[in-house]
Amino acid sequence: MNIHTRADAPTGLSAQEEFLNELFDKGVLFDSGVDGLYGRSGAFEDVIKAFDRLVTRHGKHDAATSIHFPPGIARPLFEKSGYMKSFPQLAGTVHSFMGGDADHCTLLAELEAGQDWTGQQQATDIVLTPAACYPLYPTVAKRGPLPPEGRLYDLQSYCFRHEPSKDPARMQMFRMREYVRIGSPEQVRAFRETWLERGQTMMASLGVPLKVDVANDPFFGRAGRMLANNQRDTGLKFELLIPVTSEEKPTACLSFNYHQDHFGSLWNIPTADGGVAHTACVGFGMERVALALFKHHGCETAQWPEAVRQVLWP
Amino acid sequence: MNIHTRADAPTGLSAQEEFLNELFDKGVLFDSGVDGLYGRSGAFEDVIKAFDRLVTRHGKHDAATSIHFPPGIARPLFEKSGYMKSFPQLAGTVHSFMGGDADHCTLLAELEAGQDWTGQQQATDIVLTPAACYPLYPTVAKRGPLPPEGRLYDLQSYCFRHEPSKDPARMQMFRMREYVRIGSPEQVRAFRETWLERGQTMMASLGVPLKVDVANDPFFGRAGRMLANNQRDTGLKFELLIPVTSEEKPTACLSFNYHQDHFGSLWNIPTADGGVAHTACVGFGMERVALALFKHHGCETAQWPEAVRQVLWP
Repeated sequence: MNIHTRADAPTGLSAQEEFLNELFDKGVLFDSGVDGLYGRSGAFEDVIKAFDRLVTRHGKHDAATSIHFPPGIARPLFEKSGYMKSFPQLAGTVHSFMGGDADHCTLLAELEAGQDWTGQQQATDIVLTPAACYPLYPTVAKRGPLPPEGRLYDLQSYCFRHEPSKDPARMQMFRMREYVRIGSPEQVRAFRETWLERGQTMMASLGVPLKVDVANDPFFGRAGRMLANNQRDTGLKFELLIPVTSEEKPTACLSFNYHQDHFGSLWNIPTADGGVAHTACVGFGMERVALALFKHHGCETAQWPEAVRQVLWP
Repeated sequence: MNIHTRADAPTGLSAQEEFLNELFDKGVLFDSGVDGLYGRSGAFEDVIKAFDRLVTRHGKHDAATSIHFPPGIARPLFEKSGYMKSFPQLAGTVHSFMGGDADHCTLLAELEAGQDWTGQQQATDIVLTPAACYPLYPTVAKRGPLPPEGRLYDLQSYCFRHEPSKDPARMQMFRMREYVRIGSPEQVRAFRETWLERGQTMMASLGVPLKVDVANDPFFGRAGRMLANNQRDTGLKFELLIPVTSEEKPTACLSFNYHQDHFGSLWNIPTADGGVAHTACVGFGMERVALALFKHHGCETAQWPEAVRQVLWP
């Protein structure tokens, strides 16, 4: 393991930049010129797929309903979600050209002159998905009251967050897998406890150092600091942390969130007995887990410890 | 097989809407309220994964270099690609909020009042990827001149095209896999011939009716019609078509494209002998193939013909 705990390594580059450059040099990631936007090698994808199957094995007895969401969510649903209230700086709206031939001439002239040509772009009905579970709640609400046992979903989605960074573990576009439990407070808290245990067992089997800690989301602005403190104080969010480029600021690779009745109220999801559904989720940052493995076991997956390879490719 | 060739089925719905509603009713796709933006069921994803492995088996002796691209491409590369010249109506730029607390208050007031709140959104450095191979060419150009045998890539990316439609086979966000050959004109033409054959053999093994025909891209505006006609006349684009909701207008599920030296010149990719690289690609519309299979074999994959199941899940 080779993790710099200082802000700057001897090269003058931060530990994050050093690891990013190593990933480019070894062909694990491909540079696009934009921070946080990278191509992934075949070996990287093999790790993502293997970890995905490992999560499936750990969750297989729970009989979750699987849904794969595309990278976008319908704008009306996104607007209702409240995301712009809490995290406006992270969202990405999708805009398109909706003009005719004359407008197109203007656009091409702007492009040709190296000017900003995006002024004519108009917002479409699509916003990039910020977290895999956002499109789920309105989908569940349409099904009416929950059955007594509640519901469990297994989700996958590409997500977007506008936070360009040299930290390879902070990509702008990344995949998130989530199990989402919807039911009574007892059901969803039990689910979160189960996954807090399972998550640690599963990640320990991959030979990486880890710890679990209370956490908060990156709420926006002055008011956001209060929300963040409150979230920590009430223990609503835990993260499984693995040191990737820093021991002092390890990377959140899994997160375990109890939303109380936030989404159940917002989307009007009743429980079987007429209460308001509570929800909880466990999220897996697929790229972050892969990067943690590349950091701790090296850039050549064929050279990874046999015990780890057995877990990933049984 | 139950394909309506009339514009309207007895219900008053088009054949496309009928199939879309059937996919919603059977839980194969999940409605988001936006045309062309759907969740996919676990069964749908199992088909996508199985078809993905089938493509890998057919291409495995070619030793391609795999790259998985995220759903976005760097804006400077997109601008240079010329996409806004030919298909401005299809592109999606990603915009974010970059203001402070006061701007945020304005935004929230607009949202609350049900007004357009997207006016403050500013273009980021990311544009949604329109086709899996667009981010590849600048990546290859950085590697310098090609080796004498050229190069072969195996790509995967989520793609975006702003063309909302009730046709389930015309999604706004969909996955594309591509093999891309870069080399001499002879090398890339031979590659395209090989895949024209392989593609037909592979799709016939899935028990779907198909034909191959010359085609053109949806170039924009008045000038675009000439480009489209020229593309057809020179045989640069072929499509493998499968009837999904219409016999008369079958759906392009695979496409075979010879770009001549278009991308080689644009991105300055030299061949080993100092010429300009030619390129060709075969693209697989993953969702379209899955939908063709659901249409012809039914919504229950367990009930699909044993011969087809053997090909997909050997």
